[in-house]
Amino acid sequence: MVEKIARFMRANDKVAVWLNIDVLSAKIGYAKMGMTIRADMLNAADMCQGGALFSFADFAFAVASNSRGTLALATSADIHFTNPAFLGDRLIAEAQELQRTKRTGFYQITVTRESDGKLIALFSGNVFIKEEHIKAG
Amino acid sequence: MVEKIARFMRANDKVAVWLNIDVLSAKIGYAKMGMTIRADMLNAADMCQGGALFSFADFAFAVASNSRGTLALATSADIHFTNPAFLGDRLIAEAQELQRTKRTGFYQITVTRESDGKLIALFSGNVFIKEEHIKAG
Amino acid sequence: MVEKIARFMRANDKVAVWLNIDVLSAKIGYAKMGMTIRADMLNAADMCQGGALFSFADFAFAVASNSRGTLALATSADIHFTNPAFLGDRLIAEAQELQRTKRTGFYQITVTRESDGKLIALFSGNVFIKEEHIKAG
Amino acid sequence: MVEKIARFMRANDKVAVWLNIDVLSAKIGYAKMGMTIRADMLNAADMCQGGALFSFADFAFAVASNSRGTLALATSADIHFTNPAFLGDRLIAEAQELQRTKRTGFYQITVTRESDGKLIALFSGNVFIKEEHIKAG
Repeated sequence: MVEKIARFMRANDKVAVWLNIDVLSAKIGYAKMGMTIRADMLNAADMCQGGALFSFADFAFAVASNSRGTLALATSADIHFTNPAFLGDRLIAEAQELQRTKRTGFYQITVTRESDGKLIALFSGNVFIKEEHIKAG
Repeated sequence: MVEKIARFMRANDKVAVWLNIDVLSAKIGYAKMGMTIRADMLNAADMCQGGALFSFADFAFAVASNSRGTLALATSADIHFTNPAFLGDRLIAEAQELQRTKRTGFYQITVTRESDGKLIALFSGNVFIKEEHIKAG
Repeated sequence: MVEKIARFMRANDKVAVWLNIDVLSAKIGYAKMGMTIRADMLNAADMCQGGALFSFADFAFAVASNSRGTLALATSADIHFTNPAFLGDRLIAEAQELQRTKRTGFYQITVTRESDGKLIALFSGNVFIKEEHIKAG
Repeated sequence: MVEKIARFMRANDKVAVWLNIDVLSAKIGYAKMGMTIRADMLNAADMCQGGALFSFADFAFAVASNSRGTLALATSADIHFTNPAFLGDRLIAEAQELQRTKRTGFYQITVTRESDGKLIALFSGNVFIKEEHIKAG
């Protein structure tokens, strides 16, 4: 069930398509993703653009927070950029559920570089949970 | 000078290229941008993806914070999603400088829908200012 | 009604009591407060302690978000410290409602110094709105 | 040295004095604190006031970020309230350093309840590091 939702979201979230994110694992309240930095994800200083890092973490957040099948909408998120990432770096995003009530959820996502395990960004996000279910196919 | 920096950043920030952001105005500590939501910026719920909104605001933030010509690197940012935006919506991002010291800066960016002026997202970001200058061409 | 809620909250929020916050105005989705920095609000660097500034802004946020009489609980908040404040400074906190749905709300609070209008801190906060009403006396 | 700084900050941060925070451990880039919720830390809903939780976490953040003896000033912080805490609860704040450069630092602080280990709040904060040293006595 969780994997079906993850597959549906991966196919239909156009930014995940653009970033070519790999869904490595998806469980209730959890998601792990991979992404390799391409030339078209760089900013004018030749580092991975902050919005690309945000979008990568955000997609892991979306899958983890929607994993129960009820529609979860992000209300806010913050990101701290702790180390720069560069062309060709393989990044891993791991989303954990820190809180979940009937109508709210709070998640933290780490983005690390696979080669040396360095923390590239730390992301946290809040969702509001709607009554409706995800139409996952 | 500010406009030269903005043009350089617009050409070399690959995510700004992908989003096809229009630089409407760039002054010292200020930037205004436009963007129209395309089908490939939607999430699985057919709303503008959060990462695309973040990236749009982030680019206005980058131009405003680098407008003096000294390299400003984002250390953190947060975004609140206040209203959903949809396919075809024309969005305006406006970045203002709320604080600037020799080594730090703090900016707030509003993202509004042009047709009705509704606030779509509120973004704020911190930069650390390096000694080096932007190579703007 | 809003003023009754504000009076009740001011009397029963023990941190507002400790900070001796003045409720200057309270309307639906809006609150304005005053506070004067005392010696026992300073940190080890003799500036107004960040937690005291946060608590001041947080109380304006609480009054604005509870102004409709339905219980609003803070889920998250962030604060940016833009200028230091010192012993004897008179501060003004002004809370505005940027978003309100049936179950969520988002508020931004400015903390300025009365004497020169300088921005001391910018605070934003999210609430989750419960079904129950505030027992305001 | 770190312990001397922590003792100095604990004695001179007036909000730490008011909250009666116990310094349990202080190392380079790390701090652990304890606090017991008193009646005068409650809000109008009889839960621990958000500003009191923020101030508690903020003090652990201040000690960890100043532990090297160079003055670190908070530029921004955010807090997520994950579970309510009540009168008499014993809370533990633990601050970890996630990033440190010459001029910037980023810290995350967990606030948990000692009796059941539940996460009460998650706090993160950024500092700007000045050239001057802390006058720790």
